[in-house]
Amino acid sequence: MNESIVEGRNPVIESFRAGKEIEKVLILDGCHDGPVMTVKREASKKHVPVKYVEKEVLDRISSTGHHQGVIAYIAAYEYSDMEDMFEKAKEKGEDPFFIMLEHIEDPHNLGAIIRTANMAGAHGVIIPKDRACGLTSTVARTSAGALNYTGVAKVTNLSRTIDDLKKRGVWTVCADMDGEVMYDLNLKGPICLVIGNEGEGVGRLLKEKCDMIAKIPTSGDIDSLNASVAAGVMAFEIVRQRIR
Amino acid sequence: MNESIVEGRNPVIESFRAGKEIEKVLILDGCHDGPVMTVKREASKKHVPVKYVEKEVLDRISSTGHHQGVIAYIAAYEYSDMEDMFEKAKEKGEDPFFIMLEHIEDPHNLGAIIRTANMAGAHGVIIPKDRACGLTSTVARTSAGALNYTGVAKVTNLSRTIDDLKKRGVWTVCADMDGEVMYDLNLKGPICLVIGNEGEGVGRLLKEKCDMIAKIPTSGDIDSLNASVAAGVMAFEIVRQRIR
Repeated sequence: MNESIVEGRNPVIESFRAGKEIEKVLILDGCHDGPVMTVKREASKKHVPVKYVEKEVLDRISSTGHHQGVIAYIAAYEYSDMEDMFEKAKEKGEDPFFIMLEHIEDPHNLGAIIRTANMAGAHGVIIPKDRACGLTSTVARTSAGALNYTGVAKVTNLSRTIDDLKKRGVWTVCADMDGEVMYDLNLKGPICLVIGNEGEGVGRLLKEKCDMIAKIPTSGDIDSLNASVAAGVMAFEIVRQRIR
Repeated sequence: MNESIVEGRNPVIESFRAGKEIEKVLILDGCHDGPVMTVKREASKKHVPVKYVEKEVLDRISSTGHHQGVIAYIAAYEYSDMEDMFEKAKEKGEDPFFIMLEHIEDPHNLGAIIRTANMAGAHGVIIPKDRACGLTSTVARTSAGALNYTGVAKVTNLSRTIDDLKKRGVWTVCADMDGEVMYDLNLKGPICLVIGNEGEGVGRLLKEKCDMIAKIPTSGDIDSLNASVAAGVMAFEIVRQRIR
């Protein structure tokens, strides 16, 4: 983790000012002095989530021992944006194909999904700013190199992003056990596949926004597939419909 | 890991004699006294792999500090056998559907594949005794409960198991980039899906044994999908052909 954290008040403030992609800031609970207030202001300006924690948490994460009550997580990779993704589809002469992840928290799942997105020919992955794993070094490693080719855009509001996608002619389909069996849906054309959180699946609000709800025809004794496996199965159903 | 290791010469010998399912034994390199020879003999009788390691390795793994040069890994779950799996298919009135894993080493992948096997309605998972992850507590956790329902059989020789399966009318299909696109193959009827190791895919010998080689139609910049994602995509193609 060392490579992706910055410790100490001034180093964190400098990272913000240098325009580094900061995933999240941890601040010692109850700390309100000048430099800490500056960190909070910078974080709020750039919509970076701030979490207030106990000293023990900071001590455990710190590798230098000099965190001064502030630790920032820096993205191991640069984020892409929606425009780049649309551009990529256009360059390849293909209908846009994106994968949106609601709140994937496990870096291994995020890495595996970016890997799947690449192998399924998707043009990019969309993740939210809040309550989600960012592009850490574990994600980069688990993606098996896919992060070098497949862009990941971080957006402030997934629901608003779906509205934007709709305006640009992209259909949205979310994976959910309450949906129609995926083979019965038409998943051709410009599409964005929406995958929910590991524990809870796609949230109600987002589900209502989606044009289609697709169900993988499972028949087991347990509740659900692993999120990255579900994303893979759905992504390749889209591939099947595209090439058949 | 504590719950799944046994440390010390006598405790390990007792575990063998009590018929516990031992995954692997670590022995201090150069250790040849009586009790250690007994451990080796028991391991060889039961085809349990033995690995010779330096003292530092044992010290790191040990939780009691009294390993006496011997540590055994005990399966967190009991193994099933092929007969049980065939029985399960018969009970359900379904064609047998098994997933064979060549040498999956990552417990998260093994757990996710057992979870997928359950959700895809497979009747069991087959793994080899050697060079493969066993049923550790991490596997049990990652399987999200599926290990309580889906049996895992551990066999001495995968190639011989394929011969047995063939004699019983089960077709074998392995996942490999050199194969035919999976939609063009007939994957109906009694089937065993063979998935290779994370790094190398299915080995040449096993590939030659299989009746069919199936390719997932990938189109990305990197080499391969994650093993558990590939297993999921292939398993649900089998499901699709079964229900359509």
